[in-house]
Amino acid sequence: MSRTVIGGGTVVSATGSVAADVLIDGERIVALAAPGSETAESFTSGADRRIDASGRLVVPGGLDVHTHMELPFGGTYSNDTFETGTRAAAWGGTTTIIDFAVQRRGEALRQGLDAWLAKAAGNCAIDYAFHLIVSDVNEQSLKEMDILVDEGVTSFKLFMAYPGVFYSTDGDILRAMQQASVDGATIMMHAENGIAIDLIVAETLARGETDPRFHGRTRPSALEGEATNRAIQLAGVAGSPLYIVHLTAAEALEAVVQARDAGRNVFAETCPQYLFLTDAEMERPGFEGAKYVCSPPLRPEWHLGALWRGLKTNDLSVVSTDHCPFCFKEQKELGRGDFTKIPNGLPGVENRVDLIYQGVVRGDISVERWVELIATTPARMFGLYPRKGVIAPGADADIVVYDPGAHQTISASTHHMNVDYSIYEGMAITGKAETVLSRGVVIIEDGQFAGEKGHGRYLERGTNQYLI
Amino acid sequence: MSRTVIGGGTVVSATGSVAADVLIDGERIVALAAPGSETAESFTSGADRRIDASGRLVVPGGLDVHTHMELPFGGTYSNDTFETGTRAAAWGGTTTIIDFAVQRRGEALRQGLDAWLAKAAGNCAIDYAFHLIVSDVNEQSLKEMDILVDEGVTSFKLFMAYPGVFYSTDGDILRAMQQASVDGATIMMHAENGIAIDLIVAETLARGETDPRFHGRTRPSALEGEATNRAIQLAGVAGSPLYIVHLTAAEALEAVVQARDAGRNVFAETCPQYLFLTDAEMERPGFEGAKYVCSPPLRPEWHLGALWRGLKTNDLSVVSTDHCPFCFKEQKELGRGDFTKIPNGLPGVENRVDLIYQGVVRGDISVERWVELIATTPARMFGLYPRKGVIAPGADADIVVYDPGAHQTISASTHHMNVDYSIYEGMAITGKAETVLSRGVVIIEDGQFAGEKGHGRYLERGTNQYLI
Amino acid sequence: MSRTVIGGGTVVSATGSVAADVLIDGERIVALAAPGSETAESFTSGADRRIDASGRLVVPGGLDVHTHMELPFGGTYSNDTFETGTRAAAWGGTTTIIDFAVQRRGEALRQGLDAWLAKAAGNCAIDYAFHLIVSDVNEQSLKEMDILVDEGVTSFKLFMAYPGVFYSTDGDILRAMQQASVDGATIMMHAENGIAIDLIVAETLARGETDPRFHGRTRPSALEGEATNRAIQLAGVAGSPLYIVHLTAAEALEAVVQARDAGRNVFAETCPQYLFLTDAEMERPGFEGAKYVCSPPLRPEWHLGALWRGLKTNDLSVVSTDHCPFCFKEQKELGRGDFTKIPNGLPGVENRVDLIYQGVVRGDISVERWVELIATTPARMFGLYPRKGVIAPGADADIVVYDPGAHQTISASTHHMNVDYSIYEGMAITGKAETVLSRGVVIIEDGQFAGEKGHGRYLERGTNQYLI
Amino acid sequence: MSRTVIGGGTVVSATGSVAADVLIDGERIVALAAPGSETAESFTSGADRRIDASGRLVVPGGLDVHTHMELPFGGTYSNDTFETGTRAAAWGGTTTIIDFAVQRRGEALRQGLDAWLAKAAGNCAIDYAFHLIVSDVNEQSLKEMDILVDEGVTSFKLFMAYPGVFYSTDGDILRAMQQASVDGATIMMHAENGIAIDLIVAETLARGETDPRFHGRTRPSALEGEATNRAIQLAGVAGSPLYIVHLTAAEALEAVVQARDAGRNVFAETCPQYLFLTDAEMERPGFEGAKYVCSPPLRPEWHLGALWRGLKTNDLSVVSTDHCPFCFKEQKELGRGDFTKIPNGLPGVENRVDLIYQGVVRGDISVERWVELIATTPARMFGLYPRKGVIAPGADADIVVYDPGAHQTISASTHHMNVDYSIYEGMAITGKAETVLSRGVVIIEDGQFAGEKGHGRYLERGTNQYLI
Repeated sequence: MSRTVIGGGTVVSATGSVAADVLIDGERIVALAAPGSETAESFTSGADRRIDASGRLVVPGGLDVHTHMELPFGGTYSNDTFETGTRAAAWGGTTTIIDFAVQRRGEALRQGLDAWLAKAAGNCAIDYAFHLIVSDVNEQSLKEMDILVDEGVTSFKLFMAYPGVFYSTDGDILRAMQQASVDGATIMMHAENGIAIDLIVAETLARGETDPRFHGRTRPSALEGEATNRAIQLAGVAGSPLYIVHLTAAEALEAVVQARDAGRNVFAETCPQYLFLTDAEMERPGFEGAKYVCSPPLRPEWHLGALWRGLKTNDLSVVSTDHCPFCFKEQKELGRGDFTKIPNGLPGVENRVDLIYQGVVRGDISVERWVELIATTPARMFGLYPRKGVIAPGADADIVVYDPGAHQTISASTHHMNVDYSIYEGMAITGKAETVLSRGVVIIEDGQFAGEKGHGRYLERGTNQYLI
Repeated sequence: MSRTVIGGGTVVSATGSVAADVLIDGERIVALAAPGSETAESFTSGADRRIDASGRLVVPGGLDVHTHMELPFGGTYSNDTFETGTRAAAWGGTTTIIDFAVQRRGEALRQGLDAWLAKAAGNCAIDYAFHLIVSDVNEQSLKEMDILVDEGVTSFKLFMAYPGVFYSTDGDILRAMQQASVDGATIMMHAENGIAIDLIVAETLARGETDPRFHGRTRPSALEGEATNRAIQLAGVAGSPLYIVHLTAAEALEAVVQARDAGRNVFAETCPQYLFLTDAEMERPGFEGAKYVCSPPLRPEWHLGALWRGLKTNDLSVVSTDHCPFCFKEQKELGRGDFTKIPNGLPGVENRVDLIYQGVVRGDISVERWVELIATTPARMFGLYPRKGVIAPGADADIVVYDPGAHQTISASTHHMNVDYSIYEGMAITGKAETVLSRGVVIIEDGQFAGEKGHGRYLERGTNQYLI
Repeated sequence: MSRTVIGGGTVVSATGSVAADVLIDGERIVALAAPGSETAESFTSGADRRIDASGRLVVPGGLDVHTHMELPFGGTYSNDTFETGTRAAAWGGTTTIIDFAVQRRGEALRQGLDAWLAKAAGNCAIDYAFHLIVSDVNEQSLKEMDILVDEGVTSFKLFMAYPGVFYSTDGDILRAMQQASVDGATIMMHAENGIAIDLIVAETLARGETDPRFHGRTRPSALEGEATNRAIQLAGVAGSPLYIVHLTAAEALEAVVQARDAGRNVFAETCPQYLFLTDAEMERPGFEGAKYVCSPPLRPEWHLGALWRGLKTNDLSVVSTDHCPFCFKEQKELGRGDFTKIPNGLPGVENRVDLIYQGVVRGDISVERWVELIATTPARMFGLYPRKGVIAPGADADIVVYDPGAHQTISASTHHMNVDYSIYEGMAITGKAETVLSRGVVIIEDGQFAGEKGHGRYLERGTNQYLI
Repeated sequence: MSRTVIGGGTVVSATGSVAADVLIDGERIVALAAPGSETAESFTSGADRRIDASGRLVVPGGLDVHTHMELPFGGTYSNDTFETGTRAAAWGGTTTIIDFAVQRRGEALRQGLDAWLAKAAGNCAIDYAFHLIVSDVNEQSLKEMDILVDEGVTSFKLFMAYPGVFYSTDGDILRAMQQASVDGATIMMHAENGIAIDLIVAETLARGETDPRFHGRTRPSALEGEATNRAIQLAGVAGSPLYIVHLTAAEALEAVVQARDAGRNVFAETCPQYLFLTDAEMERPGFEGAKYVCSPPLRPEWHLGALWRGLKTNDLSVVSTDHCPFCFKEQKELGRGDFTKIPNGLPGVENRVDLIYQGVVRGDISVERWVELIATTPARMFGLYPRKGVIAPGADADIVVYDPGAHQTISASTHHMNVDYSIYEGMAITGKAETVLSRGVVIIEDGQFAGEKGHGRYLERGTNQYLI
């Protein structure tokens, strides 16, 4: 077993920062020790390797709890495989992803899980787990939920959007929530009123309005607010925890705030694209707007302030990416002449940790809050703590040595995601994941990928640790 | 230097629990190590002492950030000295107190601080620090605030109650807040509309209503809500952080919730008495009600649910005691025939950690939230983290080995506070601080006080770590 | 043409009370004159009849804007015909009803309207109009909405409850709202999440819980709150006015309050049964609870205070009855052994004016607010003002001479509705409609019905007069 | 006694509009009659005069319930006397003012009232009444409140602003509210935190910032919001009605909204200047900004939308003017070099009815709401209804024949107020009071003032008619 010391850095947790050396034995952290203490010294002297973290932040590897690798969507697939996608994640300081296995209508949950396990197996550079998208709520799938929770799949995603595809009725939703309540599972919700949106879309197309900009205009934020409130009320009736995915709208946030003020088990995530980009991107000339088509859509400027405030107040507890990349060429282009044919999704798994760090740079959040948002809360929310999400004895040695003063410019020409554009092209940022370890192994170092395909292991998860 | 290991226990932080051995060298924690690891074993073999924490929670010593030892009030003194009061605190698992030094009108802040430093010096069983009560806002005291922050007194308390005694006008409050804004200091506020209350009190006495019960009836919760909102608005104008002390009323909590939802630097504490007792206590026959006279007063039942919800949502971030004990005999009795002469204050420094643990026993809060409420947040709020409030390398070895299954019955006949009654007399509770360490020294063990007067040191503090 | 004077009374409007004589020529009011003025005297001397209203309130005849005469429901019909129902209404001081014509799925709106016009024609004792229930939103019905608004049917009701019967999807609702927005029509909404309720109902029946009490338990108030918010958000997207029918739940009221605080064209009515009765009625032994089965169901006590507050704040603008009587024998009894087979609906058209007057007796609302709730606002809301709802020159002489000091006891043995029980049996009340005129004709007098079948005329209506 | 008919117009009330002839006998309205009816015809044939109101709105004369004629302020007097001010009011369609008599510190309330009665006696063109400003809350003034309510002075104004002048402490305020609660009187409140403002003002002057623009900057809207909430809470404790004068700030409106949603007897007015002008006016070059100095100050743009919404939702129930004119020359100029010396107050009594009518022109409010805001609600709020505020038999014949299509341009060169500038100079508006009657006498006609000094009578008032 190899021994590594990360010494001289500032170890940051969700509650504060301390000077400490991190002692790693094999895959796990065995101790945190005061720098210069006998304990630190004796371990270091016998260590195989010492990583100098002077002037660096030593933080738990990020968890991106919302990715879609190789997702079939609209006749194509999201363009990152588990291999390319997890490698890009590693570059960006993320050492765990939770992707979504998809139950197809008429199939069993387990079929979906097995299919996705198969896609991932042997391909991942970092550890991974799965949520399950439940497309077909029926007696069989409810029974499977019960079993799967015991097996380590503890979160199930439903859709109030996409009628005819992933959409569940309010009855299906309530039934799944009742099951989740029994199982201690967390229901994840894509909260947009898809029925109403589909009407607006049809009316818009009928008027000949087919450009990418109409994607945003046909999905008003009020309909995200409405669906979010509906999900919250249904969860209240069922008594189940609820986690709103990719929240984008001030109206939706307001519904979450009210529920949380009441002490409800309601949680929400947002994504970097909603924190940094606006609906103006979809108005770009030509077909360029298609690069920014995702659902829910990018919102008008005034929503962004609300979202940043939500990060501060913990009404938004997590930032994930909803990474779902489609190349502009041939993929996004499927929607020329009909915005509904543009594959929905944006690339981002590589940029999340850095982008949220800009909140620290700008003074909007503390460095502790950054760690909480990118690692600690995701780990606790989805039952991986303290294995992931914290630097503590016994935890997996998933660690990022972060250079808080490094400068980068985001660009498709330098990123590692398998997609031909960047939604943040040219953005100058401060801070960078310098060295990244996954289970004790250095996988990013000196600007090189040092990991390997298949190193990443599948993680069985416990239930949400925020529930009372 | 003595070496101690606390082994085999579950180390609880604000974010989660891990199995870890805590290695202590002298006054400080030098490492946390995985149990059974070589690091743990080698340290243990050379240690002077091993405390077996099997089946126990190993938690940071509590911080009670609101106590009044030897406080002159209404012609008498609160009956715990720094010696008796800090010893009682230790018994209850509290290893740091922040008491209030008092500036008298016409004197300098420093005179107040020096007087309280003198009272405490050489007497305390545990570490201690001071906030400063500012009774006289003037150019001189504002200049002193500036200096004192640099010297480690970073929080200043003002009163909207007690006209003629501690009361400050809204102009004084705003001026002090402006200074705090410049200094990064935190303004602490006793938020009751004392001017309005004094009118009601005078009218009540004029009607011949003099029993203890009228103490509560003359201080309606709406006037706490009003003052809380006023303090928040003034702090908003000044741009200063605000910490509401001993919040008791649902109306006041609502004002705090709104401010926090808006992302404001507004914080609040409550106290165990407001979480467990109601205004019915003041209605006790004879003069017994006087035992429960404090300000703000105990509230009607319906407020309690709101406060517990506030603990859950973090709109109440801290539980302190406002420990200010007066004996029933001779002290509380000063108010026979005139409730305004009853010394205001209740004993409690010994009971806080255990009482809040009942929230864990009842399933209202998690064990992590308990640690956060009693130790981590108080330490971060008042600039003592990571020296206090966390178990981490480099931190002071202020540690409680807590037996989660122990049974106790609270009683004046067994408590260690220097007061002749208990407000919780006869209450059966679960959980107990079994072994308590202060800066590496065991001070409570085997049901004995093993500490000593004068062990406790004065702490200079940094500023509030929650500010952005 | 006959001339009548109502003299010596206090004429009450929505804004205040004045001593005035009301001069009626034929069907209309021609003047209000100061008592004793030459104008009053000269008219009176030539009048055919003088009604002495000394000590009486002279108020506009009530408008009950939510009744269901002869409604087919669950294999039976509501037991009041237009003849018996409008006669009972007259007894209670109501001189206009707006009933609901029903479009059946697959039929045209006009077919529904024609069918209901035919049922009513020649049968009514008082004037009447129709809203239209839209069961089938399609291109044809949307076009008909456009036409019908011009013809005087300006309000259209949709259901979020009753899947498979009246239920509309959110898409249908949005589409109808868009049409209403263009037409200036008002959408009326039965706001309960029927899809979720049907699931709960099925689960409940599956557990063998079939008694009437389970009717209430399967329709939680949170699902009325949810649907109300959803309707409000959809109306916001469409830009249409919205009127929530029979609001019962504090959660629903809260959603209405928020919308109205924002200045939205959102309105709501409640019904007397929700203001006076609680869900305890459904718990009556035997099958007696069935007498109180309606949808939304009667609610727990705490909702009633919220509703009365809503009447005061004008967040509830109208009180209608949702009169839909089914005899206990043979009709309600259809649901023995299966609460879902109990016809939903309660009798009440005769009691509304008197019951709301109890709010005046108890000091909860003013006499002006009573007139506004029972007559003025309903008339303005549904485009009948100033023909109805006010005592003013040119208005129809629909007038109630109300004895504010009369005592009554409500009972099935004395009421005039065609139903074998009263939900208010034995309730002692103060106030009574002494004399009632419809279009200048006395129809209730000296405790006798003096009107006649067929006197009532069909009313074409304008649009909602509250819209800006 | 003279008889007048106003025929052919549309009589507008707060609830709707009807075609009706208004028959006036002497000072009072004796009847409203349907045009062309025998009643109308016979009266008209015997009338002394017929005013043709074809194409005109016939509305109750306006009530301006907040004026300050001849007010001593800062060493000068507001420049309109009761003679010039009431004449200007008449020009603008206002037929009643309620001015403020001022109790000076150390004097009796009655001394203040008598002084103001003396100023007004024999000088007014229209009817008038008084509120009383209570500067000195003591046992004597509380006893006088009791007596004055019986004599027809039913509203008392207190100040949270202007320490050392009109300012009352919270204790004084609470005591006066308790008295008002007993008497059924309404407390009117100038709600700004004057203590905090005075500190900011002193700091500002100390920095040498003396221009008019600093008037606005030293009175932040948060301090109006704070004081408004405080007044509401104190009124809640006392159980008294509360009327917030000249509300300007969104924060203050929010406090009022919350109280009104809870069904509290809390009311508020705003003024035209706050609806049409912003703080940008105070930034005018030179000393021009002084023309716009009033308290509370004009606010940033975003507050205006909130105020207009409040007019719509009835959270703002009244629009008054706070008419308090000071000439720019010699009066406003007193504040050159020190903005605190600028007399606070703006002219406006002549413009109110027309300016609010612009809300009708722009489609923000209905014509009925306009009548309610300018006449009906003020009359009900201050106990003058139905004598004033409505066109009904028995009411005083205070009537405005309003030309809804007339065009005017507001200018100091044409206005009738005794002040050398207009805050609305050059504003083009639609609508104009064409003919104005006060108690049956035409006082404005054909662009001429036809009234006379001394026609106006003093009005004893009843209590607030909105209380339950």
